[in-house]
Amino acid sequence: MKVGVFKVAQNSPDDLSGVQALIQAQTLDPRTLVAILGKTEGNGCVNDFTRGFAVQTLKAYLRSHLPPAPTHPIVYVMSGGTEGVLSPHLTLFTREPDPVAAVPHWGLVLGISHTRDFLPEEIGTLAMVDGVAEAVRQAIAQAQLQTQDVHFVQIKCPLIASARTQGSASQQFRTQDSYKSMAYSRGASALGVAIALGEVDRASLTNADICQNDGLYSCVASTSAGIELQNCEILVLGNAPTSTSDYVIGHSVMRHALDQEAVQSAIAQTGQERDRVVNLFAKAEADPSGTLLGRRHTMLDDSDINHTRMARAVVGAVVASVLQDPMVYVSGGAEHQGPAGGGPVAAIARQRDA
Amino acid sequence: MKVGVFKVAQNSPDDLSGVQALIQAQTLDPRTLVAILGKTEGNGCVNDFTRGFAVQTLKAYLRSHLPPAPTHPIVYVMSGGTEGVLSPHLTLFTREPDPVAAVPHWGLVLGISHTRDFLPEEIGTLAMVDGVAEAVRQAIAQAQLQTQDVHFVQIKCPLIASARTQGSASQQFRTQDSYKSMAYSRGASALGVAIALGEVDRASLTNADICQNDGLYSCVASTSAGIELQNCEILVLGNAPTSTSDYVIGHSVMRHALDQEAVQSAIAQTGQERDRVVNLFAKAEADPSGTLLGRRHTMLDDSDINHTRMARAVVGAVVASVLQDPMVYVSGGAEHQGPAGGGPVAAIARQRDA
Amino acid sequence: MKVGVFKVAQNSPDDLSGVQALIQAQTLDPRTLVAILGKTEGNGCVNDFTRGFAVQTLKAYLRSHLPPAPTHPIVYVMSGGTEGVLSPHLTLFTREPDPVAAVPHWGLVLGISHTRDFLPEEIGTLAMVDGVAEAVRQAIAQAQLQTQDVHFVQIKCPLIASARTQGSASQQFRTQDSYKSMAYSRGASALGVAIALGEVDRASLTNADICQNDGLYSCVASTSAGIELQNCEILVLGNAPTSTSDYVIGHSVMRHALDQEAVQSAIAQTGQERDRVVNLFAKAEADPSGTLLGRRHTMLDDSDINHTRMARAVVGAVVASVLQDPMVYVSGGAEHQGPAGGGPVAAIARQRDA
Amino acid sequence: MKVGVFKVAQNSPDDLSGVQALIQAQTLDPRTLVAILGKTEGNGCVNDFTRGFAVQTLKAYLRSHLPPAPTHPIVYVMSGGTEGVLSPHLTLFTREPDPVAAVPHWGLVLGISHTRDFLPEEIGTLAMVDGVAEAVRQAIAQAQLQTQDVHFVQIKCPLIASARTQGSASQQFRTQDSYKSMAYSRGASALGVAIALGEVDRASLTNADICQNDGLYSCVASTSAGIELQNCEILVLGNAPTSTSDYVIGHSVMRHALDQEAVQSAIAQTGQERDRVVNLFAKAEADPSGTLLGRRHTMLDDSDINHTRMARAVVGAVVASVLQDPMVYVSGGAEHQGPAGGGPVAAIARQRDA
Repeated sequence: MKVGVFKVAQNSPDDLSGVQALIQAQTLDPRTLVAILGKTEGNGCVNDFTRGFAVQTLKAYLRSHLPPAPTHPIVYVMSGGTEGVLSPHLTLFTREPDPVAAVPHWGLVLGISHTRDFLPEEIGTLAMVDGVAEAVRQAIAQAQLQTQDVHFVQIKCPLIASARTQGSASQQFRTQDSYKSMAYSRGASALGVAIALGEVDRASLTNADICQNDGLYSCVASTSAGIELQNCEILVLGNAPTSTSDYVIGHSVMRHALDQEAVQSAIAQTGQERDRVVNLFAKAEADPSGTLLGRRHTMLDDSDINHTRMARAVVGAVVASVLQDPMVYVSGGAEHQGPAGGGPVAAIARQRDA
Repeated sequence: MKVGVFKVAQNSPDDLSGVQALIQAQTLDPRTLVAILGKTEGNGCVNDFTRGFAVQTLKAYLRSHLPPAPTHPIVYVMSGGTEGVLSPHLTLFTREPDPVAAVPHWGLVLGISHTRDFLPEEIGTLAMVDGVAEAVRQAIAQAQLQTQDVHFVQIKCPLIASARTQGSASQQFRTQDSYKSMAYSRGASALGVAIALGEVDRASLTNADICQNDGLYSCVASTSAGIELQNCEILVLGNAPTSTSDYVIGHSVMRHALDQEAVQSAIAQTGQERDRVVNLFAKAEADPSGTLLGRRHTMLDDSDINHTRMARAVVGAVVASVLQDPMVYVSGGAEHQGPAGGGPVAAIARQRDA
Repeated sequence: MKVGVFKVAQNSPDDLSGVQALIQAQTLDPRTLVAILGKTEGNGCVNDFTRGFAVQTLKAYLRSHLPPAPTHPIVYVMSGGTEGVLSPHLTLFTREPDPVAAVPHWGLVLGISHTRDFLPEEIGTLAMVDGVAEAVRQAIAQAQLQTQDVHFVQIKCPLIASARTQGSASQQFRTQDSYKSMAYSRGASALGVAIALGEVDRASLTNADICQNDGLYSCVASTSAGIELQNCEILVLGNAPTSTSDYVIGHSVMRHALDQEAVQSAIAQTGQERDRVVNLFAKAEADPSGTLLGRRHTMLDDSDINHTRMARAVVGAVVASVLQDPMVYVSGGAEHQGPAGGGPVAAIARQRDA
Repeated sequence: MKVGVFKVAQNSPDDLSGVQALIQAQTLDPRTLVAILGKTEGNGCVNDFTRGFAVQTLKAYLRSHLPPAPTHPIVYVMSGGTEGVLSPHLTLFTREPDPVAAVPHWGLVLGISHTRDFLPEEIGTLAMVDGVAEAVRQAIAQAQLQTQDVHFVQIKCPLIASARTQGSASQQFRTQDSYKSMAYSRGASALGVAIALGEVDRASLTNADICQNDGLYSCVASTSAGIELQNCEILVLGNAPTSTSDYVIGHSVMRHALDQEAVQSAIAQTGQERDRVVNLFAKAEADPSGTLLGRRHTMLDDSDINHTRMARAVVGAVVASVLQDPMVYVSGGAEHQGPAGGGPVAAIARQRDA
């Protein structure tokens, strides 16, 4: 299966002019779409409706361009928050049968999967970890990937909206705080990836580890919580020798928010020059220690602006300054995604011209 | 006169433990203090009282450590806003008679000056430009600097608080909006620097140019508005052959918020390695075109977070990622300070060990 | 024509469960819909996409429930911002032929109209005032209302998004600041109402009066700006002897944000008890003098939270405390809508049971 | 002892012009000051330095007006947050020996006390509850009050700043989240009042009840957390037959944020007309159920503005609209202070002219 990657700007969450242009020019065949990752311009926190607005718009548009019974559902991952220089955009992933004369080569492959809906009381628990791990394994198998060649696993996961906890005994939930529940959901999802990839040992994992034991993490997980779904949707990206894609992926792990060497390293791993990079994908979080490189930061004590927002602004600026392109995908909240205060970063580059 | 530079962390706007330690260790003689630049952890906008709190605390402390009638007033420039990784701190500048056996060499010198109080209706007008230009010239003369060797001019300037416009005919003010008045004050002050340094021609300058004609700017001005003063306080920094300082300064101009090459260039100009840099000083603004490197940014249409805050987070991250130290001085609002969307950046490095 | 009024709660901008229930129960015939006023839970400022999300959702839903070529377009007025206790909801207005045996009586009537699209440079100018005045007159005529019996004129008007000012000479626009442009648009629209109703004299009105001369205002205008349209959409409400509606409307003018007597007075004017009130409609603004009842308020100098948001929280609380129901319609920015710091308030009550 | 009450406006946290005027006019004798309650214009959350700024300013000023060794420390309670119409001000309480010819009568008395410093790990636990209960009893005894005649107990309590949890095992703290720690501190302090007054049974109280069991509460506690202290400072107000004060106090309990009847009732309880009320003191919180009077509110899911800020705006507007004076004391976070979503409200009125 040949994988394609397209990056298009959005002027608002419901702007599909870029997608439309690609489809009308027959550059993009909507029937081949498997996943759409977006950065939308909301606050990226609980009451961010730009994610749902973008998805509703995309679905309505594609419905009129797709056969009535699609063989597979598209994975939509809208990550809210384009703080600072981050520029709202969509990254569209396609998959189509290998062209007749295609010669397999080392390059990009992908797999997708969905978990069942989780109950609010399962969010942030081992039940969620296990459900995600199982689905990640399915997506890896679908992509015909070796575990060590997985470079990025993107997950969209649910949160606990305050409306959903009413009428339930409060002790059943990891938290009553909807903003905080986003962290639990992201953390459990990331640990699911780590289990599937053998980065963390399932046997010794407990509920208490989730969002507490920051020594446990995945180097390739990127998870993003939203109010618009109740299950997890998963996209696995990696390289395989069976690829017929024009693209290739590399990754690294930022040890802290200012680790520009890791960004350079992710690009270098693709074997391509910087100007062939289509997009960078990174996770951001305010260092939970309250310090960065030995200096105090104020993000955790700021009651005016949520620290996830500031973390995106910072990592977005660092990643964009390396690429000299602010249209990159940086999502917030890196619980169990890379070391505390850091996070995975992946680069997709074009390796040959179609 | 020998110039010294000290950078100390602050745990809160009223934390002087770092300053106290320097004084008690006799590393810093408070009687030699001429200027204190601070980054404080407020919003950097109108209702930021961290600036005034820091100044009140410093003044009360120094009052008990200084002779009753100081020969010169200290210049206090508190710039609010430590968004993202920026770490609250003070940079203290001292000046003392040359040591007996000192051999003059190329290095850091400084001058300070104060304007008269400006009326609210003068803020953002040519009257302010001229007052500032005159005071900048005085500070340059005091420092025995050549115009071309001026590397950084820091100014603290007033704003128009809404309380001060009550009871006056509204048409007298450049704006009734206190947040907007900060921009006019910064812009007029920066043009004052540009006039003094010959970067802009006074004869053809009009009131209408101020905060409108962004082709006019200074490459070394850094201006910061605050509610806590009604005049301008000025600090001029440069290099001269008569210096006996252990420090040296360099500068460059960031063409846009992600211009890390300019930051490297400012450091290179000091002739010192990165690890000898004491502090970096930069200005930040959201590109007024609404785009950066051809990509849309959302800072100007964000009604939740002021764009000056986001701009500081971005430029702070870029500057800090070059230095690998988040304790840098980045202040917001770069009207007439560097080209639109960019701004000056200066580096002070230690060139010899005291 | 018989006018109906329905108030339904929304759990999110795309929640139509309440509307669906009314339609399925045949309480509401979608073909009779003429206007939908909503309070959505965004910031009510520039980057509030909840308004567009709600409208997109409503339109998609109604498209499948309406005949392909509707005889009239529905007026959608989504007002963002449910700060404090305000509860997100929709108010739906219907109009249908008089029932066969209906006896005309004093009660609610309505008219709607649309202006042409305005250019960005027309927003906030006399061109906009005139366009609105003309359309208001049309709506009044359509409703068969006497001018003195008009109790509420709701207008949805455009703003100047920063994207729309790029590539144009800047001096053409009333402002480059998109947030500020909302005020100009609301102000000019409100003056259009005042002209149509004879509250302000057109001959002596100038562009300079708009958003400056706060002695000029309408006592019944309520205008709300949004990024999702480029023309004005108008809904006129009043009482007439020809009505066959079960509802009646009254109004008053709040002199300041804490004027609960005006709210009581609007209710009293309907001639009905408080518990028969369906909804209250009010405008809110932070008193531009910076004081309220002689006391300083801090809303205008607050750089963390926009004053329109705080004003809605305040007036929402006052109006809701009188009605003892937080599901009321309070919209922000009351330029030329009532006296400075105050604004119109209208009450619709059920006068007889259907 | 004769108790006096003074309310003075502040133009900024460091504005003492009003206090100065009272002292210079000899209306207020600074040596008689026992407590100062302030509303300052910060965010009222973690990084609100307006509280500390106000206290520092007051202390420095009073130091120069008080004898070197005061017989008692003054209780400073600065409550941050003047959202909406709330007007920044100070309420000063004095206590002096009964005038020679004074005839005791039913009226205002007060007592003050301080707890020891609490460790960060004690904040929000029974250790804090017990420490506060003991100190409240002392203050009641000092005031010579009967338990049933206590009308208001104001406490300033500490929070857990993220800096203070570094280097400690995380499980020791009720929370690592500094904003959340304010709730635990307020809640434990309020339960301390409830224990002291017999409103809650100490024997059956457990750590798990704190901030969880909202059936337990005090009807007169008002607690406010701040970063500027590590112990609790307590002010008890009530009426006694031994009073020689010109003032009298009454209170009631708001059942919800829109309960204006309770505000009227607190005023009525003083036996005085509305225009003799000096100040109202109320607590505010967003109803933790997510609904108010059966309607959904959005405060708990708002990631842009903290719900404590919105709650103050709402209750401030309701209280101020009853009094028709926005200079009232409304503080946020009503854990165990009145029923869930509601809170105590007290009124101090002048009953006779001095």
